[in-house]
Amino acid sequence: MPEINRFAVAPLAALTRHLADVASERRSPDLVITGARVLSTYTERMLDDREVWVSQGRIAATKPAGTHRKTGSSATIYDARGGILAPGLVDPHIHIESSMVTACAYAEAALLNGTTTIFCDSHEIGNVMDVAGVEAMLEDARAAPLSIFLTVPSTVPATSPDLETAGGDLTAAKIAALFDRWPEAVALGEKMDYVPVTLGDERSHAIIAAALSRGRPVSGHIYGRDFVAAYAASGVTDTHEAIDRDIADDLLDAGVWIFLRGGPPTTPWHSLPQAIKTVTELGASTKRIAVCTDDRDADDLLLFGLDWVVRQAVLAGIPAERAWSMGALHGATRFGMDNEIGGLGGGRRADLVLLDDTLKPQNTWYGGELVVENRKITPALDAALEARYRYPAAAYTTVKLPESVSLLPDLPTQPCTANVIRTAPSGITLIHERLAIAPAADWPTLLAAHGLCFVSVIERHGRSPGNVAHGLLKDFGLKRGAVASSVGHDSHNIIVAGTNEPDMQVALRAIAEHQGGVCVVVDGDVRALVPLPIAGLLSDKRVTAVAEDMQRLKIEWDRAGCTLPYMGFNLIPLSVIPEIRITDRGLVLVPAMTLVPLFE
Amino acid sequence: MPEINRFAVAPLAALTRHLADVASERRSPDLVITGARVLSTYTERMLDDREVWVSQGRIAATKPAGTHRKTGSSATIYDARGGILAPGLVDPHIHIESSMVTACAYAEAALLNGTTTIFCDSHEIGNVMDVAGVEAMLEDARAAPLSIFLTVPSTVPATSPDLETAGGDLTAAKIAALFDRWPEAVALGEKMDYVPVTLGDERSHAIIAAALSRGRPVSGHIYGRDFVAAYAASGVTDTHEAIDRDIADDLLDAGVWIFLRGGPPTTPWHSLPQAIKTVTELGASTKRIAVCTDDRDADDLLLFGLDWVVRQAVLAGIPAERAWSMGALHGATRFGMDNEIGGLGGGRRADLVLLDDTLKPQNTWYGGELVVENRKITPALDAALEARYRYPAAAYTTVKLPESVSLLPDLPTQPCTANVIRTAPSGITLIHERLAIAPAADWPTLLAAHGLCFVSVIERHGRSPGNVAHGLLKDFGLKRGAVASSVGHDSHNIIVAGTNEPDMQVALRAIAEHQGGVCVVVDGDVRALVPLPIAGLLSDKRVTAVAEDMQRLKIEWDRAGCTLPYMGFNLIPLSVIPEIRITDRGLVLVPAMTLVPLFE
Repeated sequence: MPEINRFAVAPLAALTRHLADVASERRSPDLVITGARVLSTYTERMLDDREVWVSQGRIAATKPAGTHRKTGSSATIYDARGGILAPGLVDPHIHIESSMVTACAYAEAALLNGTTTIFCDSHEIGNVMDVAGVEAMLEDARAAPLSIFLTVPSTVPATSPDLETAGGDLTAAKIAALFDRWPEAVALGEKMDYVPVTLGDERSHAIIAAALSRGRPVSGHIYGRDFVAAYAASGVTDTHEAIDRDIADDLLDAGVWIFLRGGPPTTPWHSLPQAIKTVTELGASTKRIAVCTDDRDADDLLLFGLDWVVRQAVLAGIPAERAWSMGALHGATRFGMDNEIGGLGGGRRADLVLLDDTLKPQNTWYGGELVVENRKITPALDAALEARYRYPAAAYTTVKLPESVSLLPDLPTQPCTANVIRTAPSGITLIHERLAIAPAADWPTLLAAHGLCFVSVIERHGRSPGNVAHGLLKDFGLKRGAVASSVGHDSHNIIVAGTNEPDMQVALRAIAEHQGGVCVVVDGDVRALVPLPIAGLLSDKRVTAVAEDMQRLKIEWDRAGCTLPYMGFNLIPLSVIPEIRITDRGLVLVPAMTLVPLFE
Repeated sequence: MPEINRFAVAPLAALTRHLADVASERRSPDLVITGARVLSTYTERMLDDREVWVSQGRIAATKPAGTHRKTGSSATIYDARGGILAPGLVDPHIHIESSMVTACAYAEAALLNGTTTIFCDSHEIGNVMDVAGVEAMLEDARAAPLSIFLTVPSTVPATSPDLETAGGDLTAAKIAALFDRWPEAVALGEKMDYVPVTLGDERSHAIIAAALSRGRPVSGHIYGRDFVAAYAASGVTDTHEAIDRDIADDLLDAGVWIFLRGGPPTTPWHSLPQAIKTVTELGASTKRIAVCTDDRDADDLLLFGLDWVVRQAVLAGIPAERAWSMGALHGATRFGMDNEIGGLGGGRRADLVLLDDTLKPQNTWYGGELVVENRKITPALDAALEARYRYPAAAYTTVKLPESVSLLPDLPTQPCTANVIRTAPSGITLIHERLAIAPAADWPTLLAAHGLCFVSVIERHGRSPGNVAHGLLKDFGLKRGAVASSVGHDSHNIIVAGTNEPDMQVALRAIAEHQGGVCVVVDGDVRALVPLPIAGLLSDKRVTAVAEDMQRLKIEWDRAGCTLPYMGFNLIPLSVIPEIRITDRGLVLVPAMTLVPLFE
């Protein structure tokens, strides 16, 4: 079996003479994929009846179909008639950890979706394991049958130790060292603390300077048109958080690349249909717009890949050739890699997909190796995926809980005001509701009166042992039992919501037992559980197995009545998104960045 | 007076906190240019009624006009009502030496034309003085009031010592050292030997590898659709030599950026109107197309700047906003500098121009400093230009001629065939004409019979002392006298054309006396001379003075009857352009790359 990873294809510098020979027809290519239309991401046109010549894992040339026959070439011929050959997709912003799989496992889903390059920001594992986590994932990425580049986690912890306890603390010095040690660290990852950044926070700007002074661009994450100018002035030059037409428009004109994020329409990720109106309604050029996925559940990953996002752009009115270019070339250009990926130009990596007329990938070649055929992985890829990277032992022991922990707040005995977290679609923003509470006989009565359930966040890094915060969720819809997760952005303390403490305790213990996971508990019974033993974030299984686990979990999740999907639930502690969040330190008001008591 | 050069503006990494303060209105900007429309190169739209806030030489923000008034800001206000604010132009491919001025002097013309950044390939001075010449020009560039980046000369000598004698020999090792010593060396310069490249020549590919292995892209120079595939496979990713629609189209789809070259319509430089048809007739996206000037006479430089080229693109059917973006942002993007220049985004250098409605620059700010106002340079710029860089003494002694040299071939005494160089519009290609010659009584009779004049190339580097080659020019139109130049691409030996030897000798001695220059001689009298004492290529005067000298020269040049403009004449020795050329070694057939005798 061939080795399949990014390094199996030699750098272009070592192959130019060889490829010139092949392109000049003095030497036979290894592979000719013939008879297809070619989607030119460079000119945004469909070129009829071509063939792509591949040698040593790179594209030697694209020629008129049938040219190879006249040369007496000894190449392997692949008949692609009826299809469209296009470059593999390039996802400019994703978090592998959101899919709860390793980088090696992620590759399987990506390749099935026609994605051959990703720029990942491993800030989840960075929040749990600091530099060691980031570097373990980089080793994982190097072993993967996929081109994986890093945008270095920039905001770990997401806020500060006053507001939450994280396992990681990525200072400017540590980030600088990551840039210097890992050439695949091509940019600074999303600088999520946009409020401190625009306020001129010293640590935040030192981190930005670590990237800029090394010639690496800075990726962003921003809400609110009022912040755009100061954020751009701070050196941020891309964002995937343009969630509506007007902020997308502002950002583009401020010189910020836009990555339109698409995702399952039932989740808050699907901002593309709104943001793309900067093009379809306001006439902005698409040349600085790419598409991205950002986060995906393992099972959604297979159904809502970047190819799906590209097709959503087409549905929104973008011509197919342009939309695919936004999915392939533009991300490459943003990161200065358009000479290597993103199009079928000479010398580029032979990362290709064969599409049907609806832009659905049928085949994928990664570095000239056929890894997906007729929408199924090939034996070569299957073998590569079985030999995937194993994380170090320390990654398997990251859930450190006290012997016992109380998961409920004290029942109010006086009339008071509760600072409640109200959930509402789309679920990204959580509404701060100040609720007048009259004393009640017991918790069930009080919860029922206001449509509430409990939510607690329990420190799990062993850095502030015993830290636990209690809050109340409104309109979360949980009918009975508990749901819990060791994924709780971004510090990844344990988050448990429930209608009663016994079920919440069972959920917490289930997670502790597996050193990480997500579960649904009803009447003391663990109805579904996805074990996440690596850093409490990742499974060590193949993506298809994790997707099956997630599907089972989602059935139980919905059956329990939760109105937020799992991926909205695990954002409840993410203290950089408005309006109110809960961390292990308590309830956080965003963007004031202050703690408030539950009852006052 | 302020210091005006690229380094007067601090790197963005050092200014992000400051700029965030200004953009957030916590600190006053230094300068507010208000009331103008803003041309957004990012979205290719005109934004009404804005103002640009500048601080520390960078753009803090673009805001609605009048915002500063509400802040009580202490900024200097510049009223730009009625105009269009746009980013300074970025010329992605030029040779400063063609303008016969130093980099510092070139800046004056560039700024008057609204150009604030250039990517120059100093291969002319490299051909004369090797690495020392390139490095002297880099020092010159660092002192200039203009942002000058280098695309490292890649093809010095243009061919080989068998075909011509150059003063420079830039090996892969020397090129690698230039990349490693000079951070402004951002790419490999035009790899002109496209035939050897496509044939897999070892030296050529070692030079390409020196760039690619350092992550630097490779610029190209190519004629002929048949070579495109192999050239792209060799790692070349831009060219300015797309001279017609179809090769432009092929190159774009092969992944090669196109720089449309515009120039005085009387010269062969004006290929834009043909090449742009890839867009206007064949529908290619403009996103990977820029515009450039390549070469300019000193006087043409003032009249046919990059702004003029942009306006030619508009005349060809490109919307104004898009055309300006092709002139500003696209070149920046190609070289990975769109975060620094090419648009009015936050954090960018405050390199701005104020345009009228016809896109003619009225004002230029370079790094926030007003350097051109109402189409005239400001006192600040004038002072900076008076303090320009002085080249080292060695640069002033590069014309090394033998005591005496014969400038005529022997008169044929037998019927024979002459390999004649026929000039014809556009002048870039020189036609190889095999002319049957009958013996004549003397040279004047023979020349008159065939419409010929003499052309000789004399080695001047002292490397092959005494080398002189004799040829015959057909249809060059010179009526009497001689013209001569120490600029003779690319080796820059002395080229002399004439109707008689005495005038040719006078011309040669005039050039020797000034250590370089261009002249017209009639009846033993030097009618016009532009002294070029630096490397025999450059004047040490201001650009306006050189432009005046050139204008006088051109009058005499035309009066002498020359059908090729000076800038076509000095390409006669350029042995990489079809069909026939003359170097100090003799007549060269291109692309066979063989020498032929004058008579056979």
